[in-house]
Amino acid sequence: MNDFDDLAERVERFAVARDWGQFHTPRNLALALTGEVGELAAELQWKSATEIAAGIDGDLRARLADEVADVLIYLIRFSQVCGIDPTAEAHAKVTRNEARYPVELSKNNTAKYTELEHP
Amino acid sequence: MNDFDDLAERVERFAVARDWGQFHTPRNLALALTGEVGELAAELQWKSATEIAAGIDGDLRARLADEVADVLIYLIRFSQVCGIDPTAEAHAKVTRNEARYPVELSKNNTAKYTELEHP
Amino acid sequence: MNDFDDLAERVERFAVARDWGQFHTPRNLALALTGEVGELAAELQWKSATEIAAGIDGDLRARLADEVADVLIYLIRFSQVCGIDPTAEAHAKVTRNEARYPVELSKNNTAKYTELEHP
Amino acid sequence: MNDFDDLAERVERFAVARDWGQFHTPRNLALALTGEVGELAAELQWKSATEIAAGIDGDLRARLADEVADVLIYLIRFSQVCGIDPTAEAHAKVTRNEARYPVELSKNNTAKYTELEHP
Repeated sequence: MNDFDDLAERVERFAVARDWGQFHTPRNLALALTGEVGELAAELQWKSATEIAAGIDGDLRARLADEVADVLIYLIRFSQVCGIDPTAEAHAKVTRNEARYPVELSKNNTAKYTELEHP
Repeated sequence: MNDFDDLAERVERFAVARDWGQFHTPRNLALALTGEVGELAAELQWKSATEIAAGIDGDLRARLADEVADVLIYLIRFSQVCGIDPTAEAHAKVTRNEARYPVELSKNNTAKYTELEHP
Repeated sequence: MNDFDDLAERVERFAVARDWGQFHTPRNLALALTGEVGELAAELQWKSATEIAAGIDGDLRARLADEVADVLIYLIRFSQVCGIDPTAEAHAKVTRNEARYPVELSKNNTAKYTELEHP
Repeated sequence: MNDFDDLAERVERFAVARDWGQFHTPRNLALALTGEVGELAAELQWKSATEIAAGIDGDLRARLADEVADVLIYLIRFSQVCGIDPTAEAHAKVTRNEARYPVELSKNNTAKYTELEHP
């Protein structure tokens, strides 16, 4: 089994072992996802691009990695309770985006980029 | 290569082919992630648990799956530009959570659950 | 001067006195707003409607009030740096919503409500 | 009556006239707030500081003003259903922040600023 599928199984076993399915409704998990993305945003809120580039090799990366982990865990759990396969859905979306943003039109093109509401 | 690693490669190739690395800074991607989680939340905002349970077999699941895909794509891209391995970080987090929320204490226990600020 | 205008003035004086205008860009403040709304969502994430109704007379209200204050302060500050009058804009939006959601069509009507993507 | 109090009354009358109190639970409104902050963030996600400064005198300000209005309306409505006075709470928070961030220590001081997790 690959790492991602194994992760999804561990996330589900964790919840089942603690009978936390009762709390893991789609709406509760959407609120939890909001909370974690908020923590990720807060790590970056007062930092300049230069400070982020400097910090990314140290403590900042560790804190961001912790938030990324939380977001991913809740996204997997949200998907499980909704019957969604997140990897398959993202593959399908990338395929649609490849058609919507042809390389020759979208390349290095911020005006187009902004207009097209890119992925 | 497994599906998830293949997805991450496609996400990176998509951005590189269009020279979109210039837009994909950590802060821009954090704002994009906020936008997508907002869209996911908006799908659920006025629906009762009963309506969600009924809708999850139809159009609602398709709309939620589309938002899950967007969140996952941006989370992968954010991780790439920050040098973070999301699957490895989430595995490490589940391991920490298993220690922090012992099954016997956390089982079916909403009071404890809330206090512990669970994963 | 009324309480709200006085609040806006205090928020501006606070930032000016500390030379924090340099950090208060629209993007930074959007990230800060995301962080605070995330904290507000996190207060509610595992609570049932019954628990919230019970808690709203005690500690929960105090914690939510603190998050509401943070969201309002950042929303005011975001508006100031963008040259937006939040109260005037919200009045104009309510006027538009009154036209978009006629009482007789929208009353007690969840189906319509959901469809119309209400305010 | 001042503009802000009048706004709050209009927001409440709007909901009462349509019997929307049934949808306006604290959790639903927290999800709605997340959706609107996500829309605000999405307006800024790919724009540089220079592009924002240029756009703030035109269409961009109008779009941001619309999102600010939505966030403020939901924040007022959330406060109403939770029994919170948002202006009074924000005044109290600014007072606490004035004590926590003394002018002489916080002035023009990004290091301190970041550490102090400023308002």
